[in-house]
This record gives sequence, C-alpha cells and structure tokens, in this order.
Amino acid sequence: MSMIDRIHSPQDIKGLCPQELTALAEEIRQALVVRIGATGGHMGSNLGMIEATVALHYVFDSPRDKLVWDVSHQTYTHKILTGRKDAYLDPAHYADVSGYTNPDESAHDPFMVGHTSTAISLALGLAKGRDLLGGKECVVAVVGDGALSGGEALEGLNNAGAYDGQLLILLNDNEMSIAPNHGGLYGSLAALRQSGGKAPNNLFTAFGLEYLYVEQGNDISALVEALSRAKEYTRPVVVHIHTQKGLGCAWAEQNKEQGHWANPGGAARFEGENNPTFTADLLLSWAKKDPTLLAVNAATPGAVGWTPEWRRQMGAQYQDVAIAEEHAVALVSGAAKRGAHAVLAIQSSFAQRTYDQLLQDLALNRSPATVLVYFGGFSSADPTHAGCYDIAMMSNIPGLLCLAPHTQEEYAALLRWSLQQTAGPVVIRVPQQVVHGPTSSAETLLAQGVVQPSTDSEVAIVGLGDAFTYAQQAAIAWQAEGRPAPTLVNPVVYSAASPALVELLSAHRTVVCLETGIIEGGYGAKLAVALAEKGVRTLVRGADKRFIDREAVTNQLARYRMTPEAVVADLLALE
Amino acid sequence: MSMIDRIHSPQDIKGLCPQELTALAEEIRQALVVRIGATGGHMGSNLGMIEATVALHYVFDSPRDKLVWDVSHQTYTHKILTGRKDAYLDPAHYADVSGYTNPDESAHDPFMVGHTSTAISLALGLAKGRDLLGGKECVVAVVGDGALSGGEALEGLNNAGAYDGQLLILLNDNEMSIAPNHGGLYGSLAALRQSGGKAPNNLFTAFGLEYLYVEQGNDISALVEALSRAKEYTRPVVVHIHTQKGLGCAWAEQNKEQGHWANPGGAARFEGENNPTFTADLLLSWAKKDPTLLAVNAATPGAVGWTPEWRRQMGAQYQDVAIAEEHAVALVSGAAKRGAHAVLAIQSSFAQRTYDQLLQDLALNRSPATVLVYFGGFSSADPTHAGCYDIAMMSNIPGLLCLAPHTQEEYAALLRWSLQQTAGPVVIRVPQQVVHGPTSSAETLLAQGVVQPSTDSEVAIVGLGDAFTYAQQAAIAWQAEGRPAPTLVNPVVYSAASPALVELLSAHRTVVCLETGIIEGGYGAKLAVALAEKGVRTLVRGADKRFIDREAVTNQLARYRMTPEAVVADLLALE
Repeated sequence: MSMIDRIHSPQDIKGLCPQELTALAEEIRQALVVRIGATGGHMGSNLGMIEATVALHYVFDSPRDKLVWDVSHQTYTHKILTGRKDAYLDPAHYADVSGYTNPDESAHDPFMVGHTSTAISLALGLAKGRDLLGGKECVVAVVGDGALSGGEALEGLNNAGAYDGQLLILLNDNEMSIAPNHGGLYGSLAALRQSGGKAPNNLFTAFGLEYLYVEQGNDISALVEALSRAKEYTRPVVVHIHTQKGLGCAWAEQNKEQGHWANPGGAARFEGENNPTFTADLLLSWAKKDPTLLAVNAATPGAVGWTPEWRRQMGAQYQDVAIAEEHAVALVSGAAKRGAHAVLAIQSSFAQRTYDQLLQDLALNRSPATVLVYFGGFSSADPTHAGCYDIAMMSNIPGLLCLAPHTQEEYAALLRWSLQQTAGPVVIRVPQQVVHGPTSSAETLLAQGVVQPSTDSEVAIVGLGDAFTYAQQAAIAWQAEGRPAPTLVNPVVYSAASPALVELLSAHRTVVCLETGIIEGGYGAKLAVALAEKGVRTLVRGADKRFIDREAVTNQLARYRMTPEAVVADLLALE
Repeated sequence: MSMIDRIHSPQDIKGLCPQELTALAEEIRQALVVRIGATGGHMGSNLGMIEATVALHYVFDSPRDKLVWDVSHQTYTHKILTGRKDAYLDPAHYADVSGYTNPDESAHDPFMVGHTSTAISLALGLAKGRDLLGGKECVVAVVGDGALSGGEALEGLNNAGAYDGQLLILLNDNEMSIAPNHGGLYGSLAALRQSGGKAPNNLFTAFGLEYLYVEQGNDISALVEALSRAKEYTRPVVVHIHTQKGLGCAWAEQNKEQGHWANPGGAARFEGENNPTFTADLLLSWAKKDPTLLAVNAATPGAVGWTPEWRRQMGAQYQDVAIAEEHAVALVSGAAKRGAHAVLAIQSSFAQRTYDQLLQDLALNRSPATVLVYFGGFSSADPTHAGCYDIAMMSNIPGLLCLAPHTQEEYAALLRWSLQQTAGPVVIRVPQQVVHGPTSSAETLLAQGVVQPSTDSEVAIVGLGDAFTYAQQAAIAWQAEGRPAPTLVNPVVYSAASPALVELLSAHRTVVCLETGIIEGGYGAKLAVALAEKGVRTLVRGADKRFIDREAVTNQLARYRMTPEAVVADLLALE
C-alpha cells in the first residue's frame, strides 16, 4: 500500500516518521506531474510547495488551525491531504475541485482566493477575530515571494508588524513570481538567501516582524523543525523558506516561467488574445521607430503575449513592475505626462486593483496613457478570474475614454491612434475573438462607431465590441423570421452613450443591447438611461451580477438570453 | 520690504543667503498661521514643511525639475514660492487656489493629487518618461511618513529600488499621519530617528534604495546641504528628514491630530456625519455588551467621529490600520469570517482604493462584515475628494448588499441588523443629513424600503437615501401644481432594483429617480434597465460623470435638475 493511500485527512500524517513523510511527498510529486500533465494547471508552484505543505499539516492542526493560502494556486498538495485526493489521482474525479481554495469544497479552506497578496491581511483578520472571541488556534499565511510586491501584502506586513499575537507568515521564496521577479526587495531576498538569513537588509524585521530562515525549503525535517519553533512565537513571525520551483519535473525546473502553468498534454500555452502576437507585433514595430513608446505590465507578460524574446527586443521600452497593479497605472500616468507613449497591458480581473489609480492618478490628470484590458468578457474561469466586471468598473470613471473594437483592424487603428493622441487616457478592451473586417479610421470609429443602418424602424441591435458578433447573429436570425434587416451598431466608445447614437436608436420601436459584461453598471445601462427618458423600449442583455464558477460560455450566453434564438424570442414576445 | 515681497518665482530665492532663507521661512510661517486661521486648512503638515519646501526650491529648478507632492495638502509654501502667494497673503485672493497641487493653476504642479501614497509611483513614471525622451531634469517625490503605509507607496518603493536613474524621495517624517501612525514600519522609523539614520532595520535599504538622514528637518542649511548631496545620486535615494508637525503654532504643536486641520476662526472641527457622535455612540454602547464587536478605520478616525476618548474606551475593539484601505477591507473580512462583528468606517473617496478587496476578499467570501461609507454624496470639495462615485463603484460588485437609509432611525436599525447577521457583507451609506422619522424595523426596510403609495398612477418619485429629501420636496412642488400626490419611494437597498419595486413603479406613467451620486453606473440606471424593458418613461437624475472642482452643492443640484422646480418642469415638459 502506497503512503498516499493511507492519507484521508491531515490527522493521518501526524504519526508518520520523517522518512514516511518524505516518501509521501515523493508520491504526491509523481501524482501531480501526471495530473497536471493531463489536465493542465499550475505546475511549478505546486511542485515546489509539496514538502512545505506536508510540514504545515504535520505541525499545525487544520482546520482548527487556519492555513490561509495566498493566490491559492499552490494548494494541490493541501487538497490531497485534506480529503480531496481523488481529484488528483483518479481521472474520473479530476474536475471535482477548483484550482484554488474554496470553503465550499472543504473546511480546510478558510477563504476563496485567486488574486495575489491578500493572505497576510486576511490571516491578520482571522487572528484579530480569534483574539476577540477568545480562541486559541494558530493562524498561518502562506505567501509566495512574487506576491510580496503587491500593495495589499505590504500593507499587511506593516500591520502584522504592529500586531501583538500569534501569526505565522510562511514565505515561499522560489526566486520567481510567474515571470522573473522585479523590484528592489528581491535583491534583499537574494541577500538573505545567500547569507542564510543573516543579511542586514531585511524587509521583514524593518516592518517589525520576527524572522526565521530555512535554506532547505524542500526538506521536510528542516521545515518541521522551523515551523515547530515558529509556532511557539506569541507575535508575528516570518518563516522564509527557500524552495525550488518545479522541483521534480525537469521541464518545469528548467523553464520556470513557462513551467508556472502547464497545458494539457504539454501543449504550448498562450493565455491572452486568441491572436496572441498581434498586439506584441504592433507594439514592437512601432517601438522600433518611436523611442518614447513604453510598454508596461504587472508580472504577467506571458499572458498578454509578451514573450521573453519580445521583451529582449523591447529593451528599456518594456517595463515589468512585478505584481503591483496600482503602481503600474501611476507609472504609465507619469510617463505619459512626461511625453512618453505609454501603454499598460493588464487582465480584466487584475485591473480591479486599480480603480482609484485609474480615477485619481490617471483620469483626473488627463495623462494620455493607454490601458489595454485583456480577458474582458465571459469566460469559464473560476469566480476569482472573471472578466465580466471591467466595463462596469472602468466606464463609470470620469475622464476615461473606453473603447471596444470588434475587428483586429479596428483594434489596430484605435491602438495606434491612442498612442499618438495627447488628450487623455484611453482604455481599449482587447478583442477576445479574432474577427477581420475593412480597415477603418480611428476618427470615424470614435465619432460614430460602426453602424449598419436599416431602412426599417422596427428593431435596432447594439453589440459592444466582441458582442457585435452576437448582434450580427441575432440580426440574421431576425431576418430568418421574415423581418427586415435591423439596424446594427457597435458603438465602439463605451464610456458614454453618445447623443447621436441615442437619437438614431430612439427612431426604432425596440432596441436590444448586447455586451460581454455585467448588465448592472454596464454600457447597456447607459443606453437604457437615455432611452428610458424617451420611453423607448430597450432590452439590455449581459451577465447577471453574481459570482459564477467554471460555467461554459455557451451556457452563460443562453442564460443571459444573448443567443440569436433568445433575442428573436424576446423580440417576438413584445409584439 | 519683507522677504516674501521679493519672491515672485523660485528663481527669486536662488540668490538668498541662509539667513535670508530662514527669514523668508519665518515670514511664510506667520502668513500661514493667519491665513489658515481665517480660511481653515491643513495647519500642521504645512507648518512643518516650510523649511524643506524652501530648501527644495533652492536646490532644484522647478518647473524644469519636477516636484511631485504626495497628497499635496502640504504645498502651501510651494504655492507661495511659485507665483501664487496672493492666495495666502491677500484675503481677497484666498479662494484663488485649491488646497492641493493642480496643473491648471501652475506649471510647477505636475499632477493634481489628493489621495495619499501616489507620489513615488507618479515620480517614477516621470523619470521613466524622462529617460526615454532623453531629458536631464531631476525628479523629486515628497512623501509624508503617514503615506508610507499605503500599498501604492510601498509598491512604488519596491520599483524605485530596482530603477537605475535619478529619483529623489524626500520623506517628511513628522511622527504622525493625520492620527498617530500605526504599523511596524513606524518602529523602524523611530529607531532611524533615534540613531541618526544608522539603525539596522531600514525599510528603504531593504527595498534597495540609497538612504540619507537629516535630523534637523526644519533647518534650511542642513536641508540644502543634504538635498544638494542627494541631487548628485544617479540612482534612487531616500532623504529622510525629521520635521516638527505644526511648528510655530503652539496649538498645532500640542494637538498634532486636531492640529492637522484647522477650522476657520479656530472653531472645533468634525468632518464626518452632521450628527458626528451618532455612530460612535451606537458602536460604543453595543461594544460594551458585545466583546466581539470590532471597529476598524484607516487613519481617519477623527473624520468619522471616533475621538481619542472613544478609541480609549473601545480598547482592543478598535483598530486603526493606518493608511491601508485595502488591508482594512481584508482585515474586517477575516475577522468577520472568524465570528467577530466587524465594521469598517471609510470615506467614500478613499473607499475607491478597495474595489478589488470588496469584491475578492469580502463579497466573494460572503464575510458578514459591515462597511460604513462616509461622505457619500454631493460636496463642494475639490475633485480628489468627491463623494459621488461610491454608489457606482460598490453597487455593481456582486455579493455586496448596499443600503442607503434616509433617517437616523433607519440607519441605526440597519446598522444593528447588519452587525448581527451572518449572510454576507453589507455596505451602509451613512446619511449626510440629520433627518428623524419613525422607528422602522430593519427587516421591513430591507424587504420593501420606504414606500408612500399614491392612489394616482401618474408619477412615482424615487429618492435613494439622502435624496429622499429631494424626492419629498419634489412631491410637494408637484402637488402645488394641483396634481395628486405622487408615489414616493426610498428603495433603501441600492445594490439591485427589486422586482417588487419595479412592478410597483411600472404601474405609473412616469418614474423619476433621484440619487446623490453619478448617474452612470448608479442606482437609477438599474431602475432604468428594468423599466426601459417595459417601455416605462423614466427620468434618472444624479451627477454627471465628470470631475468638478469646489462647486456649491446648490449649484450642482440645479445643474443636475434635482431641485423641486426642475423635477416639476421636466415632468410638465413630458405632457
């Protein structure tokens, strides 16, 4: 009987000797390589954290003691040890668990987490609650080195430094976030690694925290010893462990950035636009002629198609600010203010970190920087990575011009225009679909969007950006009912309902507006405000404002009544 | 002729000797005490920064060199030296300038800034732009110690530590933010002060930055010497100066927290609700019976009526997290998850820092914490402190129940209910007006809001929270036209348009919705989406989505057509 077969809960590892714990870790490693190879997933971070996870569950008593995982993409071993091993061992159960912690899955997961840099603050909240309620449990935050550069983590460290009670912060230092780390603190971490934790520049003691260093971060005995010692501290302590990302998988060990995530069957991965090199190629070609072009990203260049080779060619015209989205927005604002043609590429979900910076640092200052929003739209992701909120978040910030092209040609024209203009900040929602169309001028797109007028005044269908495809499909279905072609519009600009468009639309009996974002706070709601004042019947279609978990997009489209059949049925029902 | 009379631009101080610079500083100090005494303003921070500002303009060459002021409420001396002295010397011109930097006022102000912790990132952007454009100017970020705890500042420090070029960060350490500082880094700052900058725990060198210490932060000669030295650095350097907040005004020196801001004529100040002790009294009385009640604030307790005496009585049930709004949201989420009755008081404008934390850390985790939003609504503030965005920001986040009571009694009932419930997070917009009414049960308010039905089906007027007053006024004006009483509604819940309310409203010919926030993304837009689908004519009234600067609220109300006269006129125009 293998070790792993004997483990049904963390209690089952309490009686194991060091050799057995190590054997268990090795079995888990083999299982993860197979499972991640088959389903895809976060390879490097999970392989590096196996021993530390075993040690944590050996020393602490979950779920009484609370383990709070930052980002929580490194929790596969934690899930195996906490009653969810079938999801990693049995292909029939691979889909049973999400890739992140989830309290609905297990009492061993205190929070649902998918964004970085939150664990210290959440753990400090648990500790504060424990103190007020008279609890005695231990609270542990497990944080990767990449997460440390995020503002919320640093705020948390500062507050932990002033807290007087038990809190253990396990810092998993694998010398990488997704891409290589950037920022001055990583020099200090390197010095701590090189000095066995004794280097004078210590960010953690500077924040008032206790500090322990463990060089052998993949050695269970060393980890158990250090964690047992740290458990006795009555004030916050950082246990800094040096681990090897991707340990045990040669490919992931050697390709630490690409090995962060593996695709099913080992296929090459690109996470960004369906046309992944489109933006990168445009920016690189322009950058070669324009030395003031500056492309900025916050720790996820691979996700937006900015490969290591592209970064090398961009040289000083590319800047990775590490996980620091707030800083990224302020940085492009400052650079644009100084005359650079600055562009920030950011995922819809991570842009949520930047509401205030978009408003105060960027829009209020009319800095002509460009923000490219990737992954905006519907997705089958877990709830922490949804891309359906950015329209509602950004389009209601004053002074931001928000644009949603439909075709690659429109996108290229708007991006080029945006980098040249000096009036103020521009947000462009990068198309998720690869659609081609005629070359348009940015000026025309900005002035009137894309309008296919009808001679008939019955129905107008508006589709914003990617949703213009759905509008076109609905128009075809409507005509298949023997109706005249409806007016079709992609407004392109979604930061306001333009008066000209409102006038055009209000000449119709019914207006339908489709967008790939939530209805509440979205673009259709702007149209509805204008059209309701005129008493024009308007059907606004988009996502419900609620969290959804790994639901197929086709399912969502049907539920949101955005399919051609649903649009036609809803129009017919009004007659 | 006084020194100050001779200064028309920073060039005019270049030829002054140290004694003259000191005399100039003293004249500025006398002028500021008089001016702030008369108009109100940020007293302590400005008095402490006079010498450093003179020294900065002596050593650097603004506007060629760029001075980026964090928060920028400490820039009165900067404004005096850069051609705006009349606004501080001549009562007829007191209103000529804002309390913050503003590029529209002067080329010496690179940014409009009013939120903290942004200067390092903005300055790094200017520096990066300079490098790409081949500029040679110096860039200086001026940061107060209180701002250091904010995530954006810490992200900026980390990125500055990895930057290879000129950037000077002047850290004004006056041992205070608005209220006393909280967090582990302040222990390290104290050790640096006590050791003359030599203490081993140095946050700045840990971030990879160069570091200089100046104990005599109100001594112009010492400052000029240090800044001249720091100016020669070719990589980022922190110049840590120890200043005395409120220097030269005995009252501000002795009352550093209250002295942060002085009211005109020296009147006592409270910034929060018009009934400033209402919330504090409620929370304190409940906290005495409920040891799990936890009240959290991010560095502005005075602004929400949480006085030093109140804080003393709350003891461990009160937590100031310093300027760290993101952390504050995660903290209450964690504490509520552990069973504490956690409540965060935060200003509408500063809550903008927390979009992602409200969504991911709080709402997604269904943590039953309460967020009290202060200063939500129209105000005559500068654009950086507007309170009109929170409805659009928060009400479109899934899983947040957002409530807008109108009366003190409704507010108290909803706050008490919120602290007891366990379903999930609740946002309450604290009423800005003090209105009394009958005692209501929270359950009734949540289920149906406040509805005064009419026997007539002509007009329904909806007023959310504070705007219910405007709805009542409009109803009276409508009746004065000889019309039947309209249906009157405060929906209370503004995170969704309830189906029951939509049904009630759609039985009317025309619906008017008033709210004290921007129209786009707001509550009325939710109603408009639902009512436009039914073809019901709906007038949504609220603020335009654009930045406004110190405009009287009465003016705004007229411009937004929310006055009784405007509502009646717009209704009549539809007939």
